[in-house]
Amino acid sequence: MPVDPEAAITITAYDWVPDFAQGQVRDLRVRWALEETGQNYAVRYLSQGQQKEAAHRALQPFGQVPTYEEGDLTLFESGAIVWHIAERFPGLRPTEPAGQSLSLEWLFAALNTLEPPIMDRAQMTIFEVAEPWAKPRLPGVDERINERLQEASDRLGTAEWFGGGFSAGDLMMVSVLRIIEGAGLVEAFPNLADYVARATERPAFQQALTDQLAGFTGNPPPGFDEWMAELKRKQGELA
Amino acid sequence: MPVDPEAAITITAYDWVPDFAQGQVRDLRVRWALEETGQNYAVRYLSQGQQKEAAHRALQPFGQVPTYEEGDLTLFESGAIVWHIAERFPGLRPTEPAGQSLSLEWLFAALNTLEPPIMDRAQMTIFEVAEPWAKPRLPGVDERINERLQEASDRLGTAEWFGGGFSAGDLMMVSVLRIIEGAGLVEAFPNLADYVARATERPAFQQALTDQLAGFTGNPPPGFDEWMAELKRKQGELA
Repeated sequence: MPVDPEAAITITAYDWVPDFAQGQVRDLRVRWALEETGQNYAVRYLSQGQQKEAAHRALQPFGQVPTYEEGDLTLFESGAIVWHIAERFPGLRPTEPAGQSLSLEWLFAALNTLEPPIMDRAQMTIFEVAEPWAKPRLPGVDERINERLQEASDRLGTAEWFGGGFSAGDLMMVSVLRIIEGAGLVEAFPNLADYVARATERPAFQQALTDQLAGFTGNPPPGFDEWMAELKRKQGELA
Repeated sequence: MPVDPEAAITITAYDWVPDFAQGQVRDLRVRWALEETGQNYAVRYLSQGQQKEAAHRALQPFGQVPTYEEGDLTLFESGAIVWHIAERFPGLRPTEPAGQSLSLEWLFAALNTLEPPIMDRAQMTIFEVAEPWAKPRLPGVDERINERLQEASDRLGTAEWFGGGFSAGDLMMVSVLRIIEGAGLVEAFPNLADYVARATERPAFQQALTDQLAGFTGNPPPGFDEWMAELKRKQGELA
């Protein structure tokens, strides 16, 4: 579905993020869910810093994106929004109870078991990359990620999806695994790499990604280029 | 409700964990939800290492507790189980849509926004306490936690609960905030400290806690006392 300014659903997104975050900001998870369920939506873009202002905090107490508005309903937390969409519209949640359980548990596994060590890696390679412990600590973080990936790989086996048919649980598992794409971690498990490829080939994902990328029309904050150059230099030292 | 070996619902729990984890293992979240909704349940206890064996991994691919079984239904991930209980039985989920949204979003905020930095602190003060970066890295971790607590405190204000009435969202927020009780972080926000106190005074929480603690009848692994003495020594250096 095209993004439609007149749509009944409105989400929020950033009008600019650094290159490495483009295609990762969490409104992508919500856009993908809306595409899978055939819902069009409007986007209200926030420029640098607006997410921390009172007007946005009234919708999102932690000053982040995305939010979801539909009539009187407002929601924050991409996990909550994706699950709401899965319950509200057909397409992301199996109709039989066993499939619904699988969808629900893999959604939480993605956000509370896989994503914490994966975000710890982002912490080391981006936000703490200049700290003296970034390099010595990274192998232990990767070991924790690897253990989770092994376990997920063992469970997936030769299945196409974690929950029978593609569901909200798979949408979230893939969204989380994409964060470390290219780091060699997911790629070490061919069934997981194929799983991510299979999911991201879906037209709904491709449309959501295209629309997120098209929204980055804003400007970086002052000093961004210097910050980015320094980040790349430090990341080079980490490798 | 008392724990009842004949109950229709069975959860899994550990028969032993170190002192500092007693009252924190995640089956407590599920026990609490079952108490709030007036459901009795049976417990299958796992002794040291059993959680990583194939029989348990068939229920829980990551080799953790808790799991939830009821007839043909099995579930893992405490977040998924608590939400399932909230949807299945009255008592943890408001009946009007706005309250249901609040309950859902605060459940996810607890698990995906608050808990990751809070578990990062556990990583520094327990699992990585002997590493040279534990002490220099901890202040930055606490700063991230503090930012989230400030935002949660601002949103809670003078309200009793995040979602109108006590709900699954509050149950999970409190469960996560309890992890760092006594570290001076939550205590710096009197409304959050009161919120945790108000929730943990609930008879359902007290019963769940009592029952979890009563289940630790097993034995520690060989070498545990030496490991614990070393942990305490290292934690002393961190302080």
